[in-house]
Amino acid sequence: MKIRYSQLTIIPGNPAKNYETCLSAAKRAKKDGVNLLLLPEMSIPGYMIGDRWEENDFIEDCEFFSSELAKEADENFSLIFGTVAFFESVYGSPHNGYDGRKAKMNVALIATNGKTEYRVKTLLPNYREFEEPRHFFDNLTATARASNITEDAKMFPLQEICGAKFGVTICEDGWDDDYYYKPFDILSKAGAEILINISYSPFTAGKNRSRNRHFANHAKNLNKPVIYVNGLGLQNNGKTVFWFDGSSAAWNSKGELIAHSKMYEEEDVDFQFVDGELFSVSPLKYKETAEIEDIHKTLIYGIRNYMKQSGLKKVVIGASGGVDSTLAAALYAEAIGKENLLLVNMPTKFNSQTTIGIAQKLAANLGCWYTSVPVSESAALTKRQIDGLKPTNSKGENIEINLSSFNMENVQARDRGSRILAAIASAWGAVFTNNGNKTETTVGYATLYGDVAGFLAALGDLWKHTVYDLCRYINREKEIVPNEVLTLKPSAELSDNQAVDKGLGDPLIYPYHDRLLEALQQWWNRAPLADILQHYLDGDLAAYLNHGEKTELTEELIKTNFPDAKSFISDLERWYKLFKGMGVAKRIQAPPIIAVTRRAYGFDYREAAIQPYFSRKYLELKEKAIFS
Amino acid sequence: MKIRYSQLTIIPGNPAKNYETCLSAAKRAKKDGVNLLLLPEMSIPGYMIGDRWEENDFIEDCEFFSSELAKEADENFSLIFGTVAFFESVYGSPHNGYDGRKAKMNVALIATNGKTEYRVKTLLPNYREFEEPRHFFDNLTATARASNITEDAKMFPLQEICGAKFGVTICEDGWDDDYYYKPFDILSKAGAEILINISYSPFTAGKNRSRNRHFANHAKNLNKPVIYVNGLGLQNNGKTVFWFDGSSAAWNSKGELIAHSKMYEEEDVDFQFVDGELFSVSPLKYKETAEIEDIHKTLIYGIRNYMKQSGLKKVVIGASGGVDSTLAAALYAEAIGKENLLLVNMPTKFNSQTTIGIAQKLAANLGCWYTSVPVSESAALTKRQIDGLKPTNSKGENIEINLSSFNMENVQARDRGSRILAAIASAWGAVFTNNGNKTETTVGYATLYGDVAGFLAALGDLWKHTVYDLCRYINREKEIVPNEVLTLKPSAELSDNQAVDKGLGDPLIYPYHDRLLEALQQWWNRAPLADILQHYLDGDLAAYLNHGEKTELTEELIKTNFPDAKSFISDLERWYKLFKGMGVAKRIQAPPIIAVTRRAYGFDYREAAIQPYFSRKYLELKEKAIFS
Repeated sequence: MKIRYSQLTIIPGNPAKNYETCLSAAKRAKKDGVNLLLLPEMSIPGYMIGDRWEENDFIEDCEFFSSELAKEADENFSLIFGTVAFFESVYGSPHNGYDGRKAKMNVALIATNGKTEYRVKTLLPNYREFEEPRHFFDNLTATARASNITEDAKMFPLQEICGAKFGVTICEDGWDDDYYYKPFDILSKAGAEILINISYSPFTAGKNRSRNRHFANHAKNLNKPVIYVNGLGLQNNGKTVFWFDGSSAAWNSKGELIAHSKMYEEEDVDFQFVDGELFSVSPLKYKETAEIEDIHKTLIYGIRNYMKQSGLKKVVIGASGGVDSTLAAALYAEAIGKENLLLVNMPTKFNSQTTIGIAQKLAANLGCWYTSVPVSESAALTKRQIDGLKPTNSKGENIEINLSSFNMENVQARDRGSRILAAIASAWGAVFTNNGNKTETTVGYATLYGDVAGFLAALGDLWKHTVYDLCRYINREKEIVPNEVLTLKPSAELSDNQAVDKGLGDPLIYPYHDRLLEALQQWWNRAPLADILQHYLDGDLAAYLNHGEKTELTEELIKTNFPDAKSFISDLERWYKLFKGMGVAKRIQAPPIIAVTRRAYGFDYREAAIQPYFSRKYLELKEKAIFS
Repeated sequence: MKIRYSQLTIIPGNPAKNYETCLSAAKRAKKDGVNLLLLPEMSIPGYMIGDRWEENDFIEDCEFFSSELAKEADENFSLIFGTVAFFESVYGSPHNGYDGRKAKMNVALIATNGKTEYRVKTLLPNYREFEEPRHFFDNLTATARASNITEDAKMFPLQEICGAKFGVTICEDGWDDDYYYKPFDILSKAGAEILINISYSPFTAGKNRSRNRHFANHAKNLNKPVIYVNGLGLQNNGKTVFWFDGSSAAWNSKGELIAHSKMYEEEDVDFQFVDGELFSVSPLKYKETAEIEDIHKTLIYGIRNYMKQSGLKKVVIGASGGVDSTLAAALYAEAIGKENLLLVNMPTKFNSQTTIGIAQKLAANLGCWYTSVPVSESAALTKRQIDGLKPTNSKGENIEINLSSFNMENVQARDRGSRILAAIASAWGAVFTNNGNKTETTVGYATLYGDVAGFLAALGDLWKHTVYDLCRYINREKEIVPNEVLTLKPSAELSDNQAVDKGLGDPLIYPYHDRLLEALQQWWNRAPLADILQHYLDGDLAAYLNHGEKTELTEELIKTNFPDAKSFISDLERWYKLFKGMGVAKRIQAPPIIAVTRRAYGFDYREAAIQPYFSRKYLELKEKAIFS
């Protein structure tokens, strides 16, 4: 029996287009004598479509195209693909969901000769950006409502194709660690000879290694082959943009990897299934890639396809000569082509010749368009118009408006984003970018309508140290990112206190604050403030924050910067309050972020604009630390 | 037996403060000889706190303060209040949630003399802004995991207090229409003599009437008294701000209303429970309020408390003389005081004396601060700096940047928001507002970093017709909103094509587009485009869109504006594409909205930046309509 999976690109919310993609795959498979074709989860509707799941006309069309695709099955050819189905279509009688709308499910449609069956997804992820129970009944609920069946064997039927018994699962069904029901185990026990998992699962740095371990273990522990097919494509939930990276794979019954597709590339992979064992038709050519390479690829594909899907072609970048805008420029040049990229340097009297020189060199290295528009005249106009302004009331009283030097820093930042870049972009038929990294985004170290503005934050899920790592990766063969930028002190250059040539700049000590903020925001079990303080007091905070990784952060560095508990606590609370305070307010109005880590801002990491929280334990420890 | 509910204000994410509030209520109740005190759902943690639920140190503190509060119970005094609890605390052994973190539940804590028991919430809402299954196990899951119990009687135990059997439920447990389990019925059947529902439920226009009907029916059908206590407070999920409005109430066993607290006011209400019947100690003083009055109250409380919770005092409003900014000014003046309000008129050559006059009159009516800052000089500077700019590349080639008159409209809008208002606000220690209404917000009829900017969109969930209704409501006793604004043609006044004195202005036909967009965005079962087109063709679209309400929209108005199918379809698709296209991109970067309807943008109505969807049915009908 010949089995194939096709790693396909799926467009969110476009069933007609996705049907065509799947149909070509089916035609190819039939021509090649394939007996069973496997396609990804949600191949017809796409996955991230917001609340469009609530619109029945959309679901009806998905069902129509699904049944059209199912017609491809014949006596020699079966196919299994993911789609959405109304409760009624699966069980024959209508049922409402918990929201009062027609109930529906995330299903694997199994089309054999003249017959269509469904397997309903059992485990529905409901963390990070996932929210499937918002829209779908799970297998257990659906079966119970349909027929009051609660026996495992009836809830998890096998599927016979070409005389072999298949256990069919969908995505999260294979990630059963934290769930009560273990679909792989149940299906194996029921007699499945081979286990299938159709997925639509997004890229997260480091996830592929975990995925390979996970499914290899299923195969090995159950002594059954496993085929995992994952889709490709760019999908978003408004604030957060995800890349579904493919990396489909298969393992034989010993748990040995026998096939592994590349990230972001469409591919058909064929297998022979003989006497309970799975064999790959082509030899395995898989080589594990470095994480920085995966991240780089994700950003390039992310930028390119986000623009394509939005009908955008050209981009304007405010190039300050700092490392963030420099990396952004290098990424966009690669993603959309130098002819579609315009760098604009916008100096004030505070900008050094050093950074202006870097911006010029960058443009030359990339071969893109470059110009300079100074900010000073407009800043002076704003000062003249607003400083000393005296609004009055009906009693003839007045107040006076005065712009401080700090106010003027923000005036300059907004002038760059909302006046110059926005005007140039609109005149050129382009958009302009947000170049903020995750460290700045976390603490809100940026100006709303200034550097917070932009159509997309490609760097918004990269800590400052990853920004540097990416620059070095991009320079792996030749200098694209001007080398000077890698040694320059990061600075906003908005006042004399931020003069890079004097070694002045950002108030963040990146090797430390990067790791601190990562622990507070990104760890699966986020670091409690009390634990952080305790580790500082114990002198092993660097080890704790490094979390098993080797980084630039040392106990020495912490001790040098924070010689006593008071200075440590004051810094800790300063950034924590910004993270939970102004940071939230700015993120609410920030552009979409391309997700890279397993906690991107936006829909992945959900926030409320509420007060920062200091636990009782932390407050007690703090009091002891300061007054002892 | 004397029972009391206390309608309290709960602060999200502040268990220490909430504990104090609840403790005072408990002390008052004991002093007054109350035997059983009922407090709202989630009284200790608050409700909308984003992913802070994932932080164990926060949950631990909530458990600490909950057990402190429980200590108030004694031989004469019991209390029932809502809080969060770890699985372990309820069932004695630890368990992980589906996200791999410690499992927890939304519970009613029942504190009697020396004993603490829990009732776990059974029905967890997972639609609109709700996402409880993301964080909590429901009663059925928790009971099954703890003890494999699946019998109703054991999953839904009663509570005996002062010899009477109480059925205790939490919020959604009482809204069981769309669920399989009906906690009220189960508890009543098990022998409950009185049913309690502790809630924390947000305001939605029209919801209180439905709530009263709902709980009255429970009481009547089950022939048992019902007490419903709801909390007060402002909570948010980042993009969307909700007012929890109280309106606690009680019904006797005949389903007659015997008590009803006001919206937004703290109150203790006492009952006697004698021989299975509930009596209010004070006579019922409830009068149903008009919806517009409720909305007005919600906005005033919303603005006031959002600012208070964010530590903000003063506000700057760009007052154009149009109806939206005029309403915003009137609302803010009432919410925060005229001395904290500064109106800034920012004319260009396109602004009429009419609107400038309205802005001045408005400031005089309100008694607030007023000033004028013209935009022309800055617009000219931008034109001078950017129009004709010639960026070059390393080969010496160049491109030319030219600003069109449409580009210049947006330059002016951004100049107002991001340069003038932002600078004045920062200099005055204030923030500036977003005045966009829901109609504009839906189709993205506003400029990013221009009128899309601001700290809060108080009008963002009000259709244009509600904006007018509110102005008239505010003028119910005397003219606060200048009457001229109510008859003025709405206009952005950004070009000669939008001259109000010539009767020109916005491209939206509000009486029609308001209802159309409401059908597409806000109806619980959103109107499919195919149905809209079919009703147009059938000549009864106004009746369909009016949805049983009496509005300004008539069949005549539709026919006059769209004499043939082609013009109708072209308009429909224009706005639908903007709604699903640029509208989404702008909403991603828009400020938080105060929710009023049952589908506010942001966290309530979830969106993805994907292509608009035209169903097969719509496309077929369109083809037929145009070519027949």
